Amino acid sequence: MTNQSESAPVKMRRGRRQGENTTRQAIIEAARQRFSVDGYALATIRKIAADAGVNASLVIQFYGSKEGLFAAAMSMSPMALEGLATSFGGDRSCIGERVVRTFLQLWEQEAASSESMIAMLRAAVANEAVSVQLRDFLQVRLTEEIAPRLERVPDAALRAGVVATMLVGLVIGRRIVRIPALAELSIDNIVALAAPGVQVILCPS
Amino acid sequence: MTNQSESAPVKMRRGRRQGENTTRQAIIEAARQRFSVDGYALATIRKIAADAGVNASLVIQFYGSKEGLFAAAMSMSPMALEGLATSFGGDRSCIGERVVRTFLQLWEQEAASSESMIAMLRAAVANEAVSVQLRDFLQVRLTEEIAPRLERVPDAALRAGVVATMLVGLVIGRRIVRIPALAELSIDNIVALAAPGVQVILCPS
Repeated sequence: MTNQSESAPVKMRRGRRQGENTTRQAIIEAARQRFSVDGYALATIRKIAADAGVNASLVIQFYGSKEGLFAAAMSMSPMALEGLATSFGGDRSCIGERVVRTFLQLWEQEAASSESMIAMLRAAVANEAVSVQLRDFLQVRLTEEIAPRLERVPDAALRAGVVATMLVGLVIGRRIVRIPALAELSIDNIVALAAPGVQVILCPS
Repeated sequence: MTNQSESAPVKMRRGRRQGENTTRQAIIEAARQRFSVDGYALATIRKIAADAGVNASLVIQFYGSKEGLFAAAMSMSPMALEGLATSFGGDRSCIGERVVRTFLQLWEQEAASSESMIAMLRAAVANEAVSVQLRDFLQVRLTEEIAPRLERVPDAALRAGVVATMLVGLVIGRRIVRIPALAELSIDNIVALAAPGVQVILCPS
């Protein structure tokens, strides 16, 4: 999908004024509704824009892509998502350590985004409508964004999915249930314990 | 704590009649309240019995121990809990496979208990009061029930905690969010992918 911002109304380009905030909110609400009903794969920018009463080009101008719009609707940081995917690339010999550290830092250290990531996690587990939305999105991320970075690894999308869900479990244990033994450990300590396991799952010998 | 059922009212022994069900319900409600306020470690059978207006011996007769009462209050099967702890014992060379299979079977196959385990998992993530109750309970389970089975493993309670939370994450991905790539796999397939990693975490070389 190309960036069609050229055709967006000029007045929208001067920063977030009252009108722009209202428009963004309408788009996000339409997106949440549409992703919830149609799922990530079938929802389109065009339909969401129509629901919000705006031009599709404006949605692209604001959010860049369907993925960016979904991330905004789920209160995810696009940079954080990119960071997670990137951690599966690069030097294979330390992939376990890199992936574990990236997951934990994202959910635990970057204060601005970690609170919304935790909120999203709670919602995904508690709320069927949110888990339906996440389901397709995560599937697409695994197969299109992460698996290609695991070139020559058999069952790459599956292995990445196993690892990603396992690390989310670890975050739940530390940040949501806060089991004392786990919550008290530093990220370095947790990395030392978990990374060798993740390494073996991602790079089977 | 010894079984004091000898001192329980005789009429309670003839099966679950209306009165017994009401009494059990009162005990469970008092237990949930007390575990929520005092936490697992500080709550006592004596206090819970007093809150429910019954004798402590009756609570022991019905639930066996504080742990059994907690499991009942959280709708956990005591047999399932015992099965999870037992999987960490036994032959070390296949501990990864045994632990992964036990966790997945418990949450996915045993229909009677798996639904209540999933409900408990949702509640633990969504509801702060439930996660507070679980926190101490899980800590005690890790240090007193599971770590002793991992004799000579360094940081046994931590390693077991890392593995247990990771496997709960996998269950969330398969059973709650239901990411297609993971949900479609058989338990055998998931065991094949995840067990080598769990093996390395539980038995570092």
